[in-house]
Amino acid sequence: MRTTVGIIGAGPAGLLLARLLLGAGIDSVVLESRDRAYVEHRQRAGILEQGTVDVLRAAGAGERLDREGLPHDGIELRFDRKRHRVDFPALTGGRSVMVYAQTEVCKDLIALQLKEGGPLLFEAEALAVEGADTERPRVRFRRDGVEDVLECDYVVGCDGFWGVARKAIPEELVRVFERTYPFGWLGVLADVAPSHDELVYARHDRGFALLSMRSPSVSRLYLQVPEGTEAEEWSDDEIWAELERRFETADDWRLERGPITQKTVTPMRSYVHEPMRHGRLFLAGDAAHIVPPTGAKGLNLAIGDVVTFARALTHERRTGSAGLLDAYSETCLRRVWQAERFSYDMTTLLHRAPEATPFEDRLQLARLERIAASRAAETDLAEAYTGFPFG
Amino acid sequence: MRTTVGIIGAGPAGLLLARLLLGAGIDSVVLESRDRAYVEHRQRAGILEQGTVDVLRAAGAGERLDREGLPHDGIELRFDRKRHRVDFPALTGGRSVMVYAQTEVCKDLIALQLKEGGPLLFEAEALAVEGADTERPRVRFRRDGVEDVLECDYVVGCDGFWGVARKAIPEELVRVFERTYPFGWLGVLADVAPSHDELVYARHDRGFALLSMRSPSVSRLYLQVPEGTEAEEWSDDEIWAELERRFETADDWRLERGPITQKTVTPMRSYVHEPMRHGRLFLAGDAAHIVPPTGAKGLNLAIGDVVTFARALTHERRTGSAGLLDAYSETCLRRVWQAERFSYDMTTLLHRAPEATPFEDRLQLARLERIAASRAAETDLAEAYTGFPFG
Repeated sequence: MRTTVGIIGAGPAGLLLARLLLGAGIDSVVLESRDRAYVEHRQRAGILEQGTVDVLRAAGAGERLDREGLPHDGIELRFDRKRHRVDFPALTGGRSVMVYAQTEVCKDLIALQLKEGGPLLFEAEALAVEGADTERPRVRFRRDGVEDVLECDYVVGCDGFWGVARKAIPEELVRVFERTYPFGWLGVLADVAPSHDELVYARHDRGFALLSMRSPSVSRLYLQVPEGTEAEEWSDDEIWAELERRFETADDWRLERGPITQKTVTPMRSYVHEPMRHGRLFLAGDAAHIVPPTGAKGLNLAIGDVVTFARALTHERRTGSAGLLDAYSETCLRRVWQAERFSYDMTTLLHRAPEATPFEDRLQLARLERIAASRAAETDLAEAYTGFPFG
Repeated sequence: MRTTVGIIGAGPAGLLLARLLLGAGIDSVVLESRDRAYVEHRQRAGILEQGTVDVLRAAGAGERLDREGLPHDGIELRFDRKRHRVDFPALTGGRSVMVYAQTEVCKDLIALQLKEGGPLLFEAEALAVEGADTERPRVRFRRDGVEDVLECDYVVGCDGFWGVARKAIPEELVRVFERTYPFGWLGVLADVAPSHDELVYARHDRGFALLSMRSPSVSRLYLQVPEGTEAEEWSDDEIWAELERRFETADDWRLERGPITQKTVTPMRSYVHEPMRHGRLFLAGDAAHIVPPTGAKGLNLAIGDVVTFARALTHERRTGSAGLLDAYSETCLRRVWQAERFSYDMTTLLHRAPEATPFEDRLQLARLERIAASRAAETDLAEAYTGFPFG
């Protein structure tokens, strides 16, 4: 097989990239190791930045998003039993976010790709990227038990943290930046209307909690739990009781309970792989960087990476200049590091570290008080939450 | 001896408090363990917030300050050989700071107190505060080898971190919040015109450096050094060479050298003592809280404390209500914790921690890039630097 851009991974980044390239008249092939049902149902992120929404709309993938997505104009910070709303449009000159699950983004993009786009091969497992530093990089992959080769002009690895693309960059050129956290998130899906119409980020002495939603009738709730916790250690009743404690307010706000339909634990990690490009191999999304989920930046960063790549390749096709392609890693990393910073700050602002000193606890409350009291500090947060501009 | 307010310590806080009380018709006695020359010459802070300048002026201590002080409308952040100026008035609606050494503030206030005010006793060493929770607290002190007692309605401890006032609060009522840093500042005074007309805060892989000034012909320069460093370990030449390395820019900026006249090492510490009041004993300034010097907040916090006390006591005299006096600790601590937060953030933003990971190094640069790129983030810094409102 032969194509211009070989894309490994049919997550939102890989799928959107295929769509953007199609719009620019550049052909591509997408290889995805899992089957379609798996891709369409794995629970991941659910907050789309303003810029992400704009790009999906421009790519023709905005119809159901605009019909079913929940526009959110703010979040609530909850601490010391107080409630502080951050008003995004008022602080950022009109920007906001959209709650629309990653699974739905994938469904929309898969349907479009199968109808109008180039090959999208499910259960096609990439085994290795070869010749990344040549004019003709190749992806070796296996499908139906048979090995095959996809010959490309460019390969984009959108294959996540555990993917093979990253491994094709020689170790001596790589620098890895990493931070782990001594806690994770116990996340549940519950068949109950969300108890608040915007996300609630709660800082509590017992740990962080997040109230989010997937739809007007499905709540998505998270509890900070110690690293290594198994979801089964928590009964549904224990989860609801702990959520109630952490979301407690001085007013009469109440958390509604409902049947829990899914229970999983997500580990927390910060990770950056530099560079994000080697020759004609480009990394995008989780293949190159991981953020803890507190800032809702993971999906949006991945979208930013593929937008940057599509622009750069389109520019090369139009002008013959590879300047933007050559700058890909640097361009993406500027935005990546801002998202890493913000995600780290949101995480440390709201989570209770097991080794936190009383001084650090007070510092955390002083930071929250500052955000609630200073329009500048609040704007800084609102700008970052609604999204950094694409590079 | 008998007075309304017994003030322990003739630093800027104690001296200003005596002056503020005089203006309100309330008599006081100031006890200072050192002699006048010592108080007038110990090198300390040099940056006065807008609010501090306003208070000194209103207290009639602004004449020489306005003549000799250097108004500063910004600072420079230096990192990655780049220079970024933070423009205070443009970001804060006209606020700025004044460079005027603490020694000069003390000289002005001492002269005023001796001319117009109540007793200011030098070489009068406070030994203990007694009866803090009674109507008649007392300060036992020694002067000329003779023990004496100052009977008061109120005692204000402005006697610094090592003072005796704090010890009169029963241990079981106290909570201490503390953080130490694995580095200190090697500070020098040099007889040379400052190489830049505003303060320069430099973040460098080798450590932090600060360019400041005491007058148009005297530079004040600092180098981050490992904890436990002795000033004598550094020759003058080594100091200048290291300063040059850390202040290096991509343009033709140059550091001018001159004779070094003083060389000292300052340790770094964050410390908060709660509560700041017990009965009729009130703590102000370093007696209750310490900040690392990076944010230039120590002196200004102390001034804020005594302004709060003077207002509260004046209110009590006028209205008979002790409400503001009762709220003293809480009122001061709100501002204290904001200053602790800011000082901690400025310190960790700019210093190289010996145990810093590559991830943390990059985070630091991302924070500086954010301040340089976002008006909101820059405003947050400028607001805090020029000063939080008095409580």
